Amino acid sequence: MKETTIPKATAKRLPLYYRYLKFLFDSGKNKVSSTELSEAVKVDSATIRRDFSYFGELGKRGYGYDVESLMNFFAKTLNEDELTNVALVGVGNLGHALINYRFHQSDSIRISAAFDVKEDIVGRILDGVPVYSSNEMSKQIKEQHIEVAILTVPIESAQENADRLVEAGVRGIMNFTPVRINVPDYVQVQNVDLTNEMQTLIYFLSHYKEDKED
Amino acid sequence: MKETTIPKATAKRLPLYYRYLKFLFDSGKNKVSSTELSEAVKVDSATIRRDFSYFGELGKRGYGYDVESLMNFFAKTLNEDELTNVALVGVGNLGHALINYRFHQSDSIRISAAFDVKEDIVGRILDGVPVYSSNEMSKQIKEQHIEVAILTVPIESAQENADRLVEAGVRGIMNFTPVRINVPDYVQVQNVDLTNEMQTLIYFLSHYKEDKED
Repeated sequence: MKETTIPKATAKRLPLYYRYLKFLFDSGKNKVSSTELSEAVKVDSATIRRDFSYFGELGKRGYGYDVESLMNFFAKTLNEDELTNVALVGVGNLGHALINYRFHQSDSIRISAAFDVKEDIVGRILDGVPVYSSNEMSKQIKEQHIEVAILTVPIESAQENADRLVEAGVRGIMNFTPVRINVPDYVQVQNVDLTNEMQTLIYFLSHYKEDKED
Repeated sequence: MKETTIPKATAKRLPLYYRYLKFLFDSGKNKVSSTELSEAVKVDSATIRRDFSYFGELGKRGYGYDVESLMNFFAKTLNEDELTNVALVGVGNLGHALINYRFHQSDSIRISAAFDVKEDIVGRILDGVPVYSSNEMSKQIKEQHIEVAILTVPIESAQENADRLVEAGVRGIMNFTPVRINVPDYVQVQNVDLTNEMQTLIYFLSHYKEDKED
């Protein structure tokens, strides 16, 4: 199949589709309709059909989709068969939890190196992940050909660490700090700002009150 | 000031503005221009000015914004002066980290109760947060008037726990599970799916390669 450039919005839904298919497959299901899929992933079925159309014929109308082949297709598209080594920078509470978390629904994402400045943690192995001194960051990232990093450092050192990651060859950063880091255009940043998400949720609750009144 | 309904996209940027202003204030800065603000939060200045326009006159053109009064305004808008009690359901690695994390940049968000089914953890106090048995969820949430919950349970029990939360009166759920939970319309769900985010980031890296080639 020829590589086509698909819209970013579609790309963002692929992991969602993939994981639900994997869940169905693990539960022993063979077929799934676009309606069922739509209900489960909370994406309307017209969007699902449009998304799937970028990948050619994935199912027969009226027969539903074959769970296993669809799952395998998305696994391939998402590089689920390739292992991506990820660096984690900043082993505080959240960093530590992410090491344990291990992106558990995916076998293709592995945190292979962690970095910190705290002497009591450098040199330890946490849940299988070695913690290196931040001084070794460039060296390890280059040697391990790591291109993706998770940034869980304090605010003050977010930009500095982002700079070092980019310089060492990292092209994708999952940024858990509230800082909007500056990176070159070819570097992708995924901001995951938990305080922001929570504040937005609370704001919505107090400003978009609807009918429900006790 | 009259309460106006602002667009959701604007609402989502408020915590970002607020936190940067707080950062400036803490660093002793008095004035900030929309250009500086734009550069820092990575939102173009036209959008910033439009966002701010929903809140009336917040600064004088050419003089920049007064950091302290702008910060106080957003604090108020975001209910930063009101404490929101939050329940956390599922004290695994991630749940535990979130208890420690404490949404640290905000003094207004407090996890006041955690729930789990594991006997070895129920009855303990983790970083100041009591862990109750899941059987007590409805009772505690009602008694503590909790309206916001964080869901960090295993996939299999996500929907069941969401149902119990909604039944107990929760109107906002920050959902860390990959499950797209079903809730009534008046309940807001903020999905934070870390595996999804990471897979999307990796997908972008391999499918949107740009000029940079070594």
